[in-house]
Amino acid sequence: MEVVQVLHMNGGVGATSYANNSLLQKKVITMTKPIWEEAITKLYTTSFPAKLVIADLGCSSGPNTLLVASEFIKIVSNICKKLGSQSPEFQVLLNDLPGNDFNTIFRSLPSVQEKLRKQMGCGAGHCFFSGVPGSFYGRLFPGKSVNIFHSSYSLHWLSQVPEGLESNKGNIFMASTSPPCVLKAYYQQFQKDFSLFLKCRSEELVAGGRMVLTLLGRRSDDPSSKECSYIWELMAIALNEMASEGIIEEEKVDSFNIPVYSPSPSEIKCEVMKEGSFEIDRTEITQVNWDAYNNEFKGGNVSQLQSQDRGYNVAQCIRAVAEPLLISHFGEAIIDEVFSKYGKIVADRMAKEKTEFVNITISLVKSG
Amino acid sequence: MEVVQVLHMNGGVGATSYANNSLLQKKVITMTKPIWEEAITKLYTTSFPAKLVIADLGCSSGPNTLLVASEFIKIVSNICKKLGSQSPEFQVLLNDLPGNDFNTIFRSLPSVQEKLRKQMGCGAGHCFFSGVPGSFYGRLFPGKSVNIFHSSYSLHWLSQVPEGLESNKGNIFMASTSPPCVLKAYYQQFQKDFSLFLKCRSEELVAGGRMVLTLLGRRSDDPSSKECSYIWELMAIALNEMASEGIIEEEKVDSFNIPVYSPSPSEIKCEVMKEGSFEIDRTEITQVNWDAYNNEFKGGNVSQLQSQDRGYNVAQCIRAVAEPLLISHFGEAIIDEVFSKYGKIVADRMAKEKTEFVNITISLVKSG
Repeated sequence: MEVVQVLHMNGGVGATSYANNSLLQKKVITMTKPIWEEAITKLYTTSFPAKLVIADLGCSSGPNTLLVASEFIKIVSNICKKLGSQSPEFQVLLNDLPGNDFNTIFRSLPSVQEKLRKQMGCGAGHCFFSGVPGSFYGRLFPGKSVNIFHSSYSLHWLSQVPEGLESNKGNIFMASTSPPCVLKAYYQQFQKDFSLFLKCRSEELVAGGRMVLTLLGRRSDDPSSKECSYIWELMAIALNEMASEGIIEEEKVDSFNIPVYSPSPSEIKCEVMKEGSFEIDRTEITQVNWDAYNNEFKGGNVSQLQSQDRGYNVAQCIRAVAEPLLISHFGEAIIDEVFSKYGKIVADRMAKEKTEFVNITISLVKSG
Repeated sequence: MEVVQVLHMNGGVGATSYANNSLLQKKVITMTKPIWEEAITKLYTTSFPAKLVIADLGCSSGPNTLLVASEFIKIVSNICKKLGSQSPEFQVLLNDLPGNDFNTIFRSLPSVQEKLRKQMGCGAGHCFFSGVPGSFYGRLFPGKSVNIFHSSYSLHWLSQVPEGLESNKGNIFMASTSPPCVLKAYYQQFQKDFSLFLKCRSEELVAGGRMVLTLLGRRSDDPSSKECSYIWELMAIALNEMASEGIIEEEKVDSFNIPVYSPSPSEIKCEVMKEGSFEIDRTEITQVNWDAYNNEFKGGNVSQLQSQDRGYNVAQCIRAVAEPLLISHFGEAIIDEVFSKYGKIVADRMAKEKTEFVNITISLVKSG
């Protein structure tokens, strides 16, 4: 399992899976709007830069790719209109891994730019778009060249599967039965990755620059807490079932681990303080139902058919991000069956209990 | 025939045609090396910027895409080594139309960056790459943000087929039998496009910034001169033959025109002076055989088989850039036959006479 393979998941989702995944992401982006709206407003009104450089990290390729950047442009344009001042030039830098489908983004740009021009009317500043391929666990942009970073639902992906997970047999993530050394290995990988991320971004930001980051997280101090591990535990159940049926080898399941870390707010704060370049302006926790189509837990009021649909939706959503990892480890032949089993298991649990993702959003300012 | 369709040809060449087309381009890039080497050296040693921004316009997607930018980086790194000074940060902006295959470029970047790091050794500056989709007959980058522009074999493409070519029946370009109004319409389109290009680039360049541009051109004052129109006249012969055989409609041939202009050095100088932002540092004329595999005219010493091969090579090279235009006008069904006929006609002429493309390279500095 290499870095590139893992990180590929940020953006390289299969076309068939966009609809589900993008709905979840769109919901999260909408929920966190007050936070990023405040950040861009504070940024612009404290410095009034003649050129405003906006970078989206893990932009993927789908209907949400340009959502936040376009909103940033509209917010700043409206501030300028109210103040009667000239709009800045906007530069939008779209980052994801080299495997992301940038061609599709680029081909949609002329119509996006045309729409923006119409919405903003005359007097609006130029908007320049570019694609920047590469891992955000490394430098991506020249020094002091970016005003604001945004990232949604990418930063919980680690740069690689942590080393030293040999004893995590039967699990594919931090589970209640994982030995302490597994939790430690995951946490150390998170610390290493997240502090490197902060260091790189601090070098790239102008003084007073900002970041708004949303990632999967947890409220609990326990990293194997159900609120973040349950979705992967159900996947482990599906894989273990298939191992007991002899469809896949047990050793294959034992050696498979998902390179995700869902930190607590205090773990994030700790890394920010240690790295030292940023001050936290705001931290918010939100939650969103596993099945973004149905954001309410309806308990016994859901028909069996509806319940199956919801299980299928969630399985597709996870498939969009986890399929490349599973294929690389188990091969392509078993994939349909894994997600068919997984969908049924998920549907069963969703009918019985409330199932939610916990999201953490932090708004940061680069210190003096 | 719309702008996008036409401009698509800068970069959107079919995969099957890269080999030929790229060999020709590589030859031209190699021939013009003294000019762009001088430009980057003068640029760096007069200003020593901490960040050097290099933009390649019409970068296409193939083995030549990163050739000049990589050389620029190596040249500057070597200067820094000699002077014992710190290398700047490099930013490479790769531009082509939104239809260009940026995915392929981006997927090759990690290995290109690795290679560059090895070649430059430690102490080399960061190299950042990004893709910028859009027409260069419009603004592409923020104001005063680029140090040097390079463009090879793209700028002879006009932004659109000139208007008012109704009387150019039987021809598909400026031919000796074209009426004066056709030559005028082509020239006016060139003036409009080239002056807009200069204006946009002058806004994007920093003070003292430079441009090195290579495009198809001519020595003669006559725009219908054989040195630039012959390659298209032979295509017209192929199309007219097919019209007389009833395979395509005569009216279709009459209404088809290629949106290319191959200017003379004085026409270029005239536009540069009128626009007023640039001084010409150097102008060079080079020539390259139609068949880049065989750069010598061998006259009667070529076997019939060799001659056919050479005709095929040239037809493939032209197919790489002209196919989208022909398909959009005539449909896909006739394409193979057009290029089969064309290859034979070209082979016949190449066996009898010396056939060359004339290239003009200009090196410009932003004034004041």
